[in-house]
Amino acid sequence: MDETNEVPVNRIDVLLNSWRDLPQGEKVDFFRALSQDDAEDVFLSLSRHEQAALFLDFSRGERRLWIRFLAPDDAADVMQEAGEELKTELLGLVDENVRREVTALLSYAEDEAGGLMNPRFARVRPDMLVAEAIRYVRKQALSKVDPVHYVYVLNPDQRLLGVLSLRQLFVAPPEKRISEVMEVELVTVPDEMDQESVSRLFRNHRFVALPVVDGENRMQGVVTVDDILDVNQEEATEDIQKLGGTEALDAPYPSVTLPQMIKKRAPWLMVLFVGEMFTATAMHQFEAEIQAAVVLALFIPMIISSGGNSGSQATTLIIRAMALQEVRLRDWWWIFGREALTGLCLGLFLATIGFLRIFIWPNASTLYTEHYVMVAASVAVALLGVVLFGTLVGSMLPFILRRLSLDPASASAPFVATLVDVMGLIIYFETARHLLTGRLL
Amino acid sequence: MDETNEVPVNRIDVLLNSWRDLPQGEKVDFFRALSQDDAEDVFLSLSRHEQAALFLDFSRGERRLWIRFLAPDDAADVMQEAGEELKTELLGLVDENVRREVTALLSYAEDEAGGLMNPRFARVRPDMLVAEAIRYVRKQALSKVDPVHYVYVLNPDQRLLGVLSLRQLFVAPPEKRISEVMEVELVTVPDEMDQESVSRLFRNHRFVALPVVDGENRMQGVVTVDDILDVNQEEATEDIQKLGGTEALDAPYPSVTLPQMIKKRAPWLMVLFVGEMFTATAMHQFEAEIQAAVVLALFIPMIISSGGNSGSQATTLIIRAMALQEVRLRDWWWIFGREALTGLCLGLFLATIGFLRIFIWPNASTLYTEHYVMVAASVAVALLGVVLFGTLVGSMLPFILRRLSLDPASASAPFVATLVDVMGLIIYFETARHLLTGRLL
Repeated sequence: MDETNEVPVNRIDVLLNSWRDLPQGEKVDFFRALSQDDAEDVFLSLSRHEQAALFLDFSRGERRLWIRFLAPDDAADVMQEAGEELKTELLGLVDENVRREVTALLSYAEDEAGGLMNPRFARVRPDMLVAEAIRYVRKQALSKVDPVHYVYVLNPDQRLLGVLSLRQLFVAPPEKRISEVMEVELVTVPDEMDQESVSRLFRNHRFVALPVVDGENRMQGVVTVDDILDVNQEEATEDIQKLGGTEALDAPYPSVTLPQMIKKRAPWLMVLFVGEMFTATAMHQFEAEIQAAVVLALFIPMIISSGGNSGSQATTLIIRAMALQEVRLRDWWWIFGREALTGLCLGLFLATIGFLRIFIWPNASTLYTEHYVMVAASVAVALLGVVLFGTLVGSMLPFILRRLSLDPASASAPFVATLVDVMGLIIYFETARHLLTGRLL
Repeated sequence: MDETNEVPVNRIDVLLNSWRDLPQGEKVDFFRALSQDDAEDVFLSLSRHEQAALFLDFSRGERRLWIRFLAPDDAADVMQEAGEELKTELLGLVDENVRREVTALLSYAEDEAGGLMNPRFARVRPDMLVAEAIRYVRKQALSKVDPVHYVYVLNPDQRLLGVLSLRQLFVAPPEKRISEVMEVELVTVPDEMDQESVSRLFRNHRFVALPVVDGENRMQGVVTVDDILDVNQEEATEDIQKLGGTEALDAPYPSVTLPQMIKKRAPWLMVLFVGEMFTATAMHQFEAEIQAAVVLALFIPMIISSGGNSGSQATTLIIRAMALQEVRLRDWWWIFGREALTGLCLGLFLATIGFLRIFIWPNASTLYTEHYVMVAASVAVALLGVVLFGTLVGSMLPFILRRLSLDPASASAPFVATLVDVMGLIIYFETARHLLTGRLL
């Protein structure tokens, strides 16, 4: 994430960067001032959000021009972003057959395979000769079908029988039949599969494109790996935002309005706050101790934040490992053991530092009373307990939430914070009671 | 992240899942029991980590077989994972020309374009006729070069002159020269460009593959978008782990040993702890107030954690927006204004809840002294101040760190937590001094 990485590498990037710096009102004028070639390159490089915003500012003529310029799946994406009124207008501006394709795509949810796919793909019949098939693919390329790496073999009722990479098509003996050279063991994507599962298929199999089929194995379209780039980016953004204690923004930060922003942030902040109120209740149980030994209060923030930090480490690592399928529900047991050991070690480190912080502090006996050694010991024991507890809660809560079919990313951090703060106070003061009664208490 | 998404979709996935559940010692036996076809499919679906681990358990004969099975760029990746000794052995097991390719790839850092690229790509000469070029690409396909979507036009000293998608090659009139139909305005990737920048190029331009060139525009290889999937996954994982307050693990959670795990987590936890020690120092300034009014201590955890939570929201949103290039350094000014307004609103919400929590609590006057209204007011004002301060620090610190060329992801969360906790205490007790002197103090 160095600033230097932002150096634009070619002319289109320079144009894009300047364009993105303009206020929304001036963007359409700048766009109109571009040569047709540049405008096309810039337009294709925009995100759906940006394209939809531009369509809003376009004249009717421009709308017709540019919606026709987009491939059907990209057109459908823009329409999904555009809001009902503009969507209806744009749908009226494309040809009958494109409208049919786009309408079919719009019937899928944005986050399922059908909503990601391109309905155009290169197809051949199983009884074609290889030489014939090559000519047929070239003909399809002329009518704007881009054979991205694969050619699909369909029977007359559009059922998917096999697939050939372009390389396989090229190297096959020209006089063989397609059915003799095609791959028949296929990885297919059901059209209603959610995009996260599609993304996992791509990650596991490293294909450039995968065929999407309906419930009866009829070929519907192709998802290419570049669509998955966006999916992964979105999913990571959602998880990161949830871990930070907000709802997912679902839009770029700058395009979220102030009221929306508050709506995304206030609920979790208030839930957390209500949770944290239990700390006041917990503290109330120990008012007498604080009254007797104010010195105990000094270390409260330090102790509970250490519990929170160790909990946040553990929960973040486990949630990410779950998202990447590195750990599964049934792994909870060995992770419990491992995190217990980790928490114990980390707790010992902090306990040692904490003990020394008080024990060797100049004027410790004036600042922390003549019982400063036992105060230091209380803090150290509390730190050990709090860090161990934080680590265990942080690592186990994602498993519990997942078991309950809740999203671990959105709920773990807040729960961990509250549980650990309350428990941290109890551990601290109970330890102090044991070690300091008869001395300070 | 539903459990249901884990349902495997085809046979290879079933095999993969079972394989992944085995203890490391049994994995190689299971692998040997697979049919050659299945073994190949499973092997290609493994991550580099998993492949490297398998090579360790292979016999010498198996090592030779499987390292030769991999494409040169994948072989280089595995060798990079494998450790010096195994790497040298594996390098000795491949053919002379593959060894040359792999050695060239190994000279690049793993996280730069040269380390990601495939050194094999389909090439044509500018003076070829289109019909000739198509025959030539077919010939290359026979010698294992996979033309993934693009054909590159090179002059005799390997300089990149242009590019054609396979579709463009197919639709071009067969009697034209390649130089007449190729694209000459190119997006190229310098071989030493870091992988995050390469990933941004892919996101901006939506290509399936990009050519990698050296400083003199000599073509070195091709990065395909499926390599970028892994890059993005790694980068997101790093950012998430850093935001959670650990160093990036750089390996899947289950394959990190206990000592490594502690080494990744202890340093930040200790830095944070040392930072939090300032809270004890800050608290010390207010010992007299706590002594006089123990009731004040009750709300300390609730107040500082609210500051921490609002800071964590802001810093997470800004850091992610920076990583996605939605906001840039120069945007700090309008973000400051926006976050100030957001922080003010959020602070008002919490202040209201906090005030009511004390004001309407049963027996408030017994629990919180007869001045409970002013105690409630102190808590409310402190909450407003702390949430506003947390939001501003959380949103601005990433800009400051980035300006200093530090990675915002790794340092923001800890700094925000410490700053906000210390400042939160000061705000709270200063407010209390103003409102309660002459009453409780």
